Amino acid sequence: MTAEILSVGTELLMGNIVNTNAQYISQKLCDLGINCYFQTTVGDNHDRLVSAVELALSRADLLILTGGLGPTADDLTKETIADAFGRDLILDPASEEHIRMRFARMGRDMTPNNLKQAMFPRGCIIMPNPNGTAPGCIVEDGVKAAILLPGPPKEMAPMFDASVMPYLEKRSGIMLHSRVVRVFGMGESEVEYRLRDLMEHQSNPTIAPYALSGEMKLRVTARCKSRAEGEIMIAPLIERIKATLGSVVYSTNDQELHEVCAALLKEHNATLAVAESCTGGMIASKLVSVPGISESFIEGSVTYSNEAKMNRLGVKCETLSAYTAVSAETAREMAEGIRRTSGASYGLATTGIAGPDGGTAERPVGLVYIAIAGKAETMVRELHLTGGRERIRNMASLYALDLLRRCFLSDSSNC
Amino acid sequence: MTAEILSVGTELLMGNIVNTNAQYISQKLCDLGINCYFQTTVGDNHDRLVSAVELALSRADLLILTGGLGPTADDLTKETIADAFGRDLILDPASEEHIRMRFARMGRDMTPNNLKQAMFPRGCIIMPNPNGTAPGCIVEDGVKAAILLPGPPKEMAPMFDASVMPYLEKRSGIMLHSRVVRVFGMGESEVEYRLRDLMEHQSNPTIAPYALSGEMKLRVTARCKSRAEGEIMIAPLIERIKATLGSVVYSTNDQELHEVCAALLKEHNATLAVAESCTGGMIASKLVSVPGISESFIEGSVTYSNEAKMNRLGVKCETLSAYTAVSAETAREMAEGIRRTSGASYGLATTGIAGPDGGTAERPVGLVYIAIAGKAETMVRELHLTGGRERIRNMASLYALDLLRRCFLSDSSNC
Repeated sequence: MTAEILSVGTELLMGNIVNTNAQYISQKLCDLGINCYFQTTVGDNHDRLVSAVELALSRADLLILTGGLGPTADDLTKETIADAFGRDLILDPASEEHIRMRFARMGRDMTPNNLKQAMFPRGCIIMPNPNGTAPGCIVEDGVKAAILLPGPPKEMAPMFDASVMPYLEKRSGIMLHSRVVRVFGMGESEVEYRLRDLMEHQSNPTIAPYALSGEMKLRVTARCKSRAEGEIMIAPLIERIKATLGSVVYSTNDQELHEVCAALLKEHNATLAVAESCTGGMIASKLVSVPGISESFIEGSVTYSNEAKMNRLGVKCETLSAYTAVSAETAREMAEGIRRTSGASYGLATTGIAGPDGGTAERPVGLVYIAIAGKAETMVRELHLTGGRERIRNMASLYALDLLRRCFLSDSSNC
Repeated sequence: MTAEILSVGTELLMGNIVNTNAQYISQKLCDLGINCYFQTTVGDNHDRLVSAVELALSRADLLILTGGLGPTADDLTKETIADAFGRDLILDPASEEHIRMRFARMGRDMTPNNLKQAMFPRGCIIMPNPNGTAPGCIVEDGVKAAILLPGPPKEMAPMFDASVMPYLEKRSGIMLHSRVVRVFGMGESEVEYRLRDLMEHQSNPTIAPYALSGEMKLRVTARCKSRAEGEIMIAPLIERIKATLGSVVYSTNDQELHEVCAALLKEHNATLAVAESCTGGMIASKLVSVPGISESFIEGSVTYSNEAKMNRLGVKCETLSAYTAVSAETAREMAEGIRRTSGASYGLATTGIAGPDGGTAERPVGLVYIAIAGKAETMVRELHLTGGRERIRNMASLYALDLLRRCFLSDSSNC
């Protein structure tokens, strides 16, 4: 089965928005083993939309369209597809009711043109839209099919997952189940090298690697008959990945590093305080993005100046003058200082040269020290990071969170 | 003149990456008044690439391609365009030298296939690539033109700005000069309503509004003969926008709110310390992203718990029990406490309910207090924010930074 994606909207052609829908849908098609050879973007123009639809239906079995389902005269997708499949448009009472209810809930009057969103090609499958007014639909004629989805990604993606995936799984006879393994602290090429045996012989389940900024995701996907069967297929492969890569695997459920740290702190009834210099609040901000973190996260201190390091954390003046603010010694005293003054079980600290200025030949931009003070000991790591200021700060935050995570591994004396 | 964008790369069709190039180029074409009616994405496949090139050249005067300029056998863009324009490929010695130098600088051996990147359609204009190995090129035949750009956005965008824009400006006889005005604290519809007279009668310069998360950008663009002429055309319009919208305009040079705050602190030789509860380090982190901020930013304190508010900032226990942690009184004591204990000229504080839990009917999620303590007085604002946890935290950070900015307006007693 081959598919094409047709994104409809003048705002895409004018560059007002990025076409994230095309990526979202492409990735899902790829997972399902459905080939997609062309993606096309066309504006809200009748003749050009018709030509794009005709071309796509001449090449592919399945046409997935996003956008152009709204209430205005500009919104032409349903009309064009109805023509291409030789259908007329008829009113769907359930959709009309949905649209009326939505307006009532928002306390707004429904103008008559909104009823256009309840008109559908005769005989199509209507897909509900819990996140917007315009439902989607699927038009089939036994050979070809067109799937019409709303343009806003917040409406499109949930509809795709809830309604299109089951349809495609049924049509292709394939169901998918996947889990995402996350890795920090090992380069992309080393991960792929270590997993080469697992990846070369893969057919089902498959492992797809994605490099993020400083991290890696491995998506493990099984084609299966049920979610339970998929999980049975995936679980041993995930165990083999963990055994092969070791402690750099920090999540097998697509959790981010700060989410994993928050869960570990809660699970161990431990508390944390953070003293940040170069990361400047980034670690605290990541942790505070997790709901319920207040039980575990006592406080953060952004001690960017030497004065603040001394006054707030008790870093010794002699340490700063003998070793400078960016040193293992200062990082150690910062971590121990924030632990002592806050009463937290763990004190985490960062200090470094994030650039673009402030580096020297011996102490270049990207030199960062991170430290964690626990009940048994204080550990310090020296990092040599590359990239711009924001990348260095982000990587330093991730390394620091990873150092915290490692305190909870069974072989850590700090646990 | 009409243009089409053709993005080449199987990684786009598989959904591994988002096509930001198409948006970038579309926006520039739109500015130049060049109509773009189709964007197409095709994989690294000879026949399909040829068909996409033929179709695009049959419809448009100008074809802009990204991707497929690399050294591997998969990279087919130059070959396909050379065929379409009836040219052969010849080696460009300057590009060969550039590629050899780049490998030498990275300390890596250059494999022979890399020379493919120095082969170009005969008679084309070669565009240098300071950020990668593959140069770009422009092939023209007097009627149609094809512009070939590398796929990685970090290489594509600088090449577009440095080489393609001057070419298109020359070809279309139009040069563009634009500046971005940034607005915080006024809704999109009110901004557009207030500017309706300026926007309705616009032809040159034009005002294009963009809504960001909680803010707005207004891009003011002049079609002109020189940058200096453009600035003369734009400047009075920007003054009229400022006069119409007032103090919600915080930048006329596309600076972000935290950059404006950092510049104001420096300009006034003032220092800042921040006490954050619900924003949890986000304000500090934004400020620390500005190089050189250490002169002005004394420290930040993420006082998420009541204990930290009392111990670090001297918030009174009675205040917390009488008014709770999320109250105007607590925000005031936090701002005054961080100012007093840090010695900074300004103390900025946030406290609020970011959700998803912790809200009640009287004190719902989204209730936030922000406060700034200056030399003359402490100002407190109550906010009622909507959206998820991250949006509430981000909006609270922006409102707090805006409160700081307003201390430097001429009518503020805190200046």
